[in-house]
Amino acid sequence: KSLRGLGMELRCRCIETESQIQIRPHIRKVEIIPANSHCEESEIIATLRGTGLEVCLDPEAQWVKKVIERMMSR
Amino acid sequence: KSLRGLGMELRCRCIETESQIQIRPHIRKVEIIPANSHCEESEIIATLRGTGLEVCLDPEAQWVKKVIERMMSR
Repeated sequence: KSLRGLGMELRCRCIETESQIQIRPHIRKVEIIPANSHCEESEIIATLRGTGLEVCLDPEAQWVKKVIERMMSR
Repeated sequence: KSLRGLGMELRCRCIETESQIQIRPHIRKVEIIPANSHCEESEIIATLRGTGLEVCLDPEAQWVKKVIERMMSR
């Protein structure tokens, strides 16, 4: 769940992804970074309310896709 | 297309949204901020490659939804 450096995305920022759907109500915003020359996989980084903690989410997980869909429609 | 302050999202960050689909290949990443107590509308902010310029996108626009879907699947 930790992130490496928060540089200009010169490499993947996620080491592992958070699978706990319980964090859903605590998500303040998400950042989506498509696969690029520095990182082969697209990454989704959620910032949590209150703590401002950054957590990586699995772009393939259905619940993550739903969260993002809902965030865009409200 | 300008953004107000980049504070802790204490208000809406977007004044207007970019409707030019041409910016699509230039998007390095997107940030999705759901409606919250400070801003009634969900906001999508794209960061462009190279310049790092931040541009607001319309969450309702079909091309924006497609861009985000594609970003998550690669």
